[in-house]
Amino acid sequence: MVRVGIVGYGNLGRGVEAAVANNEDMQLVAVFSRRDPKSVKIRTENVPVYALDDAVNHKDEIDVMIICGGSATDLPVMTPEIAKNFNVIDSFDTHANIPTHFANVDKSAKAAGKTAMISVGWDPGMFSIARLYGNAILNNGKDYTFWGKGVSQGHSDACRRVEGVADARQYTIPVPEALESVRNGENPELTTRQKHTRYAYVVAKEGADKKRIEKEIKEMPNYFADYDTTVEFISQEEMDKNHSKLMHGGSVFRTGVTGLNGENKHVIEYNLKLDSNPEFTGAVLVAYARAVARMNSEGMIGCKTVFDVAPAYLVNMSGDEIRAHLL
Amino acid sequence: MVRVGIVGYGNLGRGVEAAVANNEDMQLVAVFSRRDPKSVKIRTENVPVYALDDAVNHKDEIDVMIICGGSATDLPVMTPEIAKNFNVIDSFDTHANIPTHFANVDKSAKAAGKTAMISVGWDPGMFSIARLYGNAILNNGKDYTFWGKGVSQGHSDACRRVEGVADARQYTIPVPEALESVRNGENPELTTRQKHTRYAYVVAKEGADKKRIEKEIKEMPNYFADYDTTVEFISQEEMDKNHSKLMHGGSVFRTGVTGLNGENKHVIEYNLKLDSNPEFTGAVLVAYARAVARMNSEGMIGCKTVFDVAPAYLVNMSGDEIRAHLL
Repeated sequence: MVRVGIVGYGNLGRGVEAAVANNEDMQLVAVFSRRDPKSVKIRTENVPVYALDDAVNHKDEIDVMIICGGSATDLPVMTPEIAKNFNVIDSFDTHANIPTHFANVDKSAKAAGKTAMISVGWDPGMFSIARLYGNAILNNGKDYTFWGKGVSQGHSDACRRVEGVADARQYTIPVPEALESVRNGENPELTTRQKHTRYAYVVAKEGADKKRIEKEIKEMPNYFADYDTTVEFISQEEMDKNHSKLMHGGSVFRTGVTGLNGENKHVIEYNLKLDSNPEFTGAVLVAYARAVARMNSEGMIGCKTVFDVAPAYLVNMSGDEIRAHLL
Repeated sequence: MVRVGIVGYGNLGRGVEAAVANNEDMQLVAVFSRRDPKSVKIRTENVPVYALDDAVNHKDEIDVMIICGGSATDLPVMTPEIAKNFNVIDSFDTHANIPTHFANVDKSAKAAGKTAMISVGWDPGMFSIARLYGNAILNNGKDYTFWGKGVSQGHSDACRRVEGVADARQYTIPVPEALESVRNGENPELTTRQKHTRYAYVVAKEGADKKRIEKEIKEMPNYFADYDTTVEFISQEEMDKNHSKLMHGGSVFRTGVTGLNGENKHVIEYNLKLDSNPEFTGAVLVAYARAVARMNSEGMIGCKTVFDVAPAYLVNMSGDEIRAHLL
């Protein structure tokens, strides 16, 4: 059994909880929260909730801590700190800051003889692996990543910050023609606008100026200005009924040529269609938590990423079994 | 530089030759053949062809031998034998015999302190990895593998063995409705016939009985009897013009559910569209040959499969580079 602790009980923490319950070799030992533990009600029976500050008192009960915090402010502090006493894994997804985060976590983990893994999920995570395999095989080629159709929480939050907005949900949608062109191996050059459109469902506060809200959203720099965006106003009731699922997904492509004269074309596509982004991310984290526990028992300490994990470490099967059934 | 030897100069050997030429950290040192070396003309300049029996005299010049023989009779003998003196890699694809082949190769490689890797290509190979990742993440789910549209060399050969057939090329084609149903997460139960159709282009010898040929192909056990097969007679000229490319591809799906009550569905698809099966397989072999050389230098000896290779070993980039550019 791999004994798991969860740090943080939001959407992702709940996704990890479900994934642990669905893997018979994994056991949830405790949930740790910065909130008052008495106020946190989890769905797994007979599992305690502790204050995060008390975590160190449970270090001998837990093989891997799965840290379910936000990348902006939580993980840069939490992961290196918790790695001083635990094997850890997180889903840090601020691409530009990965080198710094890696260095900080590596330092803590190495000093403590622990194994840490960062940026695990689907992007970064499974999409990163698809990019790496694609580059390794078709070294003479081009990368494309499309996201969606899916809910972008960052863009939904950005809409909610506009004055007069009561609630919002933003979908990122790949442009079908762009997707088709890449899939056909046409190697198109695509601008940001040609790759994705954005669709925002907005609940306006009573009396709010919808024209202004729509304009402010569509012209918001970084988030919307570079995209063709549609804003649709709906009722809170409709929002709750039709837009509660955190669906997501996307495609990673590597297109390239082989042959002494580049005469043969190839298209590799890795595609995800996810009903629940946090539950799928949780499932990826739990598979890699299994690898973290094994790698630590084999003396592989320090900070790792998905690139450092041989696939065999991810499943609860022997080498003989995976060669017989999956090769 | 990784110094590579190629054993066998058929379609696959040529594919490997092209892949080595396309990777600046790989160098082709020699081609080894069972034919008279003087009769083997390769496309890379200034690279010698030697008799396979002389290979051992070149053991200090070569880091990895890429063995491009057939799975039926060549590789079961060649790979364990060559592993006594070289790091080796092959594309052994007789699924049922993998455990035996693995054991034989492992014994040779371990005794010699060499690293061996078997069953590398796209199926087995990249498709196997897709199956494993899918099973690791969605452990509560279902696997589907579709092949094609592509040329099956085994089925083409089977057609050619029918009396009166001068030439044949057989395409395996996924049934679009089956593919669509899996892609939509409907988890269909599919028979062999419901998953793929077969399409055979046949050149009949002069005066041959086409009715009989068609019947014999369609009723051939194991190869065609379980499928809806179309036989189309064409001229040799048309065959040479339209059916010379060894195109192939396919999709590996893992569909499954997450959540405490299995309430959310997910679909993972890994898809390949290949203009040239042997060149793509060659490109995969060369990426894994790089890993074999590195793993041997790190003391990882014995027989391995793609499941044992951390993705980072496959590319000619440092850990810092892959984290910065691909994660």
